[in-house]
Amino acid sequence: MEKLEYQEGRTELSSFGEFALIDRLTEGFTTHNKSTVKGVGDDCAVLGTGKNKMLVTTNTLVEGVNFDMMYTPLKHLGYKAVAVSLSNIAAMNGIPRQVLVSVAMSNRYSVEAMEEFYAGIRLCCERYDVDLVGGDTSTTRAGLTITVTAVGEVDEDKITYRSGAKLHDLICVSGDLGSAYSGLLVLEREKVTYQANPNFQPDLGGYDYVLERFLKPEPRMDIVKLLKEKNIVPTSMIDVSDGLASELLHICKESQCGCEVYEERLPIDYQTSRVCSEMSQNMLPVSNALNGGSDYELLFTISQSDYEKIKDSEEVHIIGHITEKGSPAVMVTPQNSTIELRAQGWKQE
Amino acid sequence: MEKLEYQEGRTELSSFGEFALIDRLTEGFTTHNKSTVKGVGDDCAVLGTGKNKMLVTTNTLVEGVNFDMMYTPLKHLGYKAVAVSLSNIAAMNGIPRQVLVSVAMSNRYSVEAMEEFYAGIRLCCERYDVDLVGGDTSTTRAGLTITVTAVGEVDEDKITYRSGAKLHDLICVSGDLGSAYSGLLVLEREKVTYQANPNFQPDLGGYDYVLERFLKPEPRMDIVKLLKEKNIVPTSMIDVSDGLASELLHICKESQCGCEVYEERLPIDYQTSRVCSEMSQNMLPVSNALNGGSDYELLFTISQSDYEKIKDSEEVHIIGHITEKGSPAVMVTPQNSTIELRAQGWKQE
Repeated sequence: MEKLEYQEGRTELSSFGEFALIDRLTEGFTTHNKSTVKGVGDDCAVLGTGKNKMLVTTNTLVEGVNFDMMYTPLKHLGYKAVAVSLSNIAAMNGIPRQVLVSVAMSNRYSVEAMEEFYAGIRLCCERYDVDLVGGDTSTTRAGLTITVTAVGEVDEDKITYRSGAKLHDLICVSGDLGSAYSGLLVLEREKVTYQANPNFQPDLGGYDYVLERFLKPEPRMDIVKLLKEKNIVPTSMIDVSDGLASELLHICKESQCGCEVYEERLPIDYQTSRVCSEMSQNMLPVSNALNGGSDYELLFTISQSDYEKIKDSEEVHIIGHITEKGSPAVMVTPQNSTIELRAQGWKQE
Repeated sequence: MEKLEYQEGRTELSSFGEFALIDRLTEGFTTHNKSTVKGVGDDCAVLGTGKNKMLVTTNTLVEGVNFDMMYTPLKHLGYKAVAVSLSNIAAMNGIPRQVLVSVAMSNRYSVEAMEEFYAGIRLCCERYDVDLVGGDTSTTRAGLTITVTAVGEVDEDKITYRSGAKLHDLICVSGDLGSAYSGLLVLEREKVTYQANPNFQPDLGGYDYVLERFLKPEPRMDIVKLLKEKNIVPTSMIDVSDGLASELLHICKESQCGCEVYEERLPIDYQTSRVCSEMSQNMLPVSNALNGGSDYELLFTISQSDYEKIKDSEEVHIIGHITEKGSPAVMVTPQNSTIELRAQGWKQE
């Protein structure tokens, strides 16, 4: 029998963050095919030999890690699984066309439960004109794991990588930040109360916006459309899955630059602020915006010459600018002090 | 809190086979994009608007269901996860170009263990000139789940679906059948002995071929190349993942035909026969060939006019022919009796 314990020289997964782990595991892989334009390292792979490129991305959601069945309706979960993958296509300035959905589930789930889940997949596919073209169903000993692969397309001259931000470019973000995480906080609070007293009826009134942000996020295809209408090709772009700080650091690393964002410019919904004040006096909405994640907003940089085209768009907020190579990524507070940004995204549990 | 128990009208997943479940879940999904040539229902989706089409397929392997860590070296597992997806590209007569690998793992796995796994992925990628272009790593509460998406290409006029078999076409299969399942039987036998006595040293000598067939299958890209060299476009094709019987039934269903295969024509390796005779007097090698699965051979049909081109190929065996619509799928025994084929592929545990 193969020995599967690696006691000697064992390095715990928990000692690595997600990105360091991916870097280590994919080190030494090179690409050879002429149809591979961009491999590992951005929101999507870019494939194809013609002018019209194909985008491919894959995302996994794991029960008990990425979602809690206690408060996740299956229809929402199906919707979210697709939405998250479409958001990656949006982050390359592309249009999603197809998805493949792989589901590994235990027999705790009934056929009717799976139908609910697929109803959510279907709703998201219909909303974004995306075709379900394949997938796989497997059994598991326990739990539900979902992997969605999305395929999209983009013209060669519209592809937006993380790596194109230039000195003095403006940093923009769509929608608002921190609300999805605030929704999660509310759900976790109600779960604890419910577990203590199963007769308790959770009161989720007044939190509808933040709950929907967490349970049923939308890929910002409207922003991709807006950019096209305004004739803007962002110099860099990424979607906000791990929190603004983490995503800014990705752009700075890949674009070899620094950045400054202004705390007072960060778009934060009033429900986010309300949840924070309810939870603890020490919980600041700006922390949720920087580190909460799961907002699936688009973070992008544009040339200053594009400022006039976008300054009046309600859904886009200019939050800062790109600084020179070697500068840190910082947030400037209203008191004019600077705080260096650190990634607090995914870490192995 | 959302009620997640569906007691009323609950239908157990176990009451459905994999294919019936997929049919039920994807019922009502329609495709709208002009780049969607073929959606759910074959080995790959076929995408693109040009003459050169893209193939996309996704496969999931779950610990404790699709593999047992007790006897699966992680390097082999990485290799197999990729190989299985490439086999689906081969089954459409295509050439694989890229893969995306999503891994969800518990912290039972060390970084070194994951490196072993990725070494296997890399070996398979290098062997088949495929680029790793993306993926995802997630945590799980327990176990390892792997989803591989493969992307390939094929000329429009070479695409081979399951649905093109015609009356009197010859049924061909590559390599041999039942050996992978025989390898699994050996591993399971040794596991039981080992569990009874952990000091026992498993003796796997003399089983090397069947073990490799199970642990490290190869996608039959050589057959795709051979067909091209011989200027043959099969009328239908599928890879043997669930067993010959199940795959023949897929072809018959999609092509609206029946078939006859001859028991004495089924290619069976002597190690397969040896394992069967060791296991039980009642275990017939032909059952492993029909129902064992995991061989990842190619099963295809060709026009009779292509017979001369392929009859001398050592790696291709002509095992029967297509019969008319409405006829059953049968195996003819050496005694000239016919046995109707039934699918014994995947069933929810």
